[in-house]
Amino acid sequence: MNPTSSVVIIGNEILSGRTLDLNTQYIAKKLSEVGIVLLETRTISDNIQIIIDTVSELKSKYDYIFTTGGIGPTHDDITSQAIAMLFKVPLELNESAYLAIKKSYESKNIKLNVAAEKMARIPKGAILINNPISGAPGFYIENVYVTAGVPYIMQAMIDQIIEQLKHGDKIFSKNIDLKVIEGVIAEDFSNLQNKYKDIEMGSYPFRNDKFYGTSLVLRSYNHELLLQAYKELMDMIAVNSWEVA
Amino acid sequence: MNPTSSVVIIGNEILSGRTLDLNTQYIAKKLSEVGIVLLETRTISDNIQIIIDTVSELKSKYDYIFTTGGIGPTHDDITSQAIAMLFKVPLELNESAYLAIKKSYESKNIKLNVAAEKMARIPKGAILINNPISGAPGFYIENVYVTAGVPYIMQAMIDQIIEQLKHGDKIFSKNIDLKVIEGVIAEDFSNLQNKYKDIEMGSYPFRNDKFYGTSLVLRSYNHELLLQAYKELMDMIAVNSWEVA
Repeated sequence: MNPTSSVVIIGNEILSGRTLDLNTQYIAKKLSEVGIVLLETRTISDNIQIIIDTVSELKSKYDYIFTTGGIGPTHDDITSQAIAMLFKVPLELNESAYLAIKKSYESKNIKLNVAAEKMARIPKGAILINNPISGAPGFYIENVYVTAGVPYIMQAMIDQIIEQLKHGDKIFSKNIDLKVIEGVIAEDFSNLQNKYKDIEMGSYPFRNDKFYGTSLVLRSYNHELLLQAYKELMDMIAVNSWEVA
Repeated sequence: MNPTSSVVIIGNEILSGRTLDLNTQYIAKKLSEVGIVLLETRTISDNIQIIIDTVSELKSKYDYIFTTGGIGPTHDDITSQAIAMLFKVPLELNESAYLAIKKSYESKNIKLNVAAEKMARIPKGAILINNPISGAPGFYIENVYVTAGVPYIMQAMIDQIIEQLKHGDKIFSKNIDLKVIEGVIAEDFSNLQNKYKDIEMGSYPFRNDKFYGTSLVLRSYNHELLLQAYKELMDMIAVNSWEVA
């Protein structure tokens, strides 16, 4: 069985529509590459009790939980506090975190202040995730990985931890775009799915300037079977004279 | 109290990282405009039991639930079936839905088939949401609004239903971008938040080609109080000589 996971996006700015969430897709792609199955994502508000309840529920349900957001220096950054409360450990000044932040501030000629020190307060027992961009680290405790909300910082953190996670079997995929609407291919595609139960088959309508089309995606852990099903799909496309986009 | 809501994105293509979810932000913005508070979003896989369990949990927690995805013609489109099972009603051929789909297919010179008819099978008692683009409608039962996954079709559906929902007090917001990093403004900004408890204050780091900056966002139902806090923020920026971006 491949490891399972969940992503928790913490931030009012996503829920208000102000900011487009780019973090989920980045993490989803990375997990997919190493065979960790992402089964659920949630976006929740900057509220301590909601963070505690959500992460608590998910961490017992999935192998890995990744949170993004809420570990910055401002008053609305409350994720570290919530995670400390969830694991019933104190938030304490972490020496390595403090030095990393100090170094980053000094390199920008900015005086260290209380707000900066706040980011060095890490739940006791947590292991730091290095932040090569702005110093203030993420961290993990047990199966809960806490990363930044800013996409390029979050990405640097995920890139570091992804290799140390338990990987699963690789998921292979094949896809093809057709210049026909979904309804036209649905029956034949469904028959193909029924023949290959172990292959996940999805169809996704799209449109561009010139036409309406459908992307067909086949995914499987079994590469040989995938190629066999894909060959059959190609035959089906030829027989029906569906135009490839 | 403003009405509350949740968005449920249904689709393996989001969880695999293949597709960037644009639907959440569109719905979030629309809800924000009419004072409906979005408190939680989830992305789940194309799995009937998971759809039933998720929507069941959320519909008792929030005033409105909006789902996107899974109402197309292919085998992986199972949202209508899941919602019918959740409400313990049969899926039945809906005459208006059938005619709308027929008309759309005829306009494209495509023969109606079993797959197209599948999209006309709607949970009994549901009220249709018109699809001006490709015919196949969405629908709602009680407080659960079921829309398409394709962004431009989903948008047309949300635009139709948004006016008939119970609106809440309008949320006003003010924001300003500064050319300083978050840590520099954190302490003063936190003091301002403490003074104005009824105003939600968020800070969001950003970077562009030239500098690292911070967006400050103030949100409140109380317009007068918001302007007062914003004025005080302006004074704070002036006193500290923070550069506005």
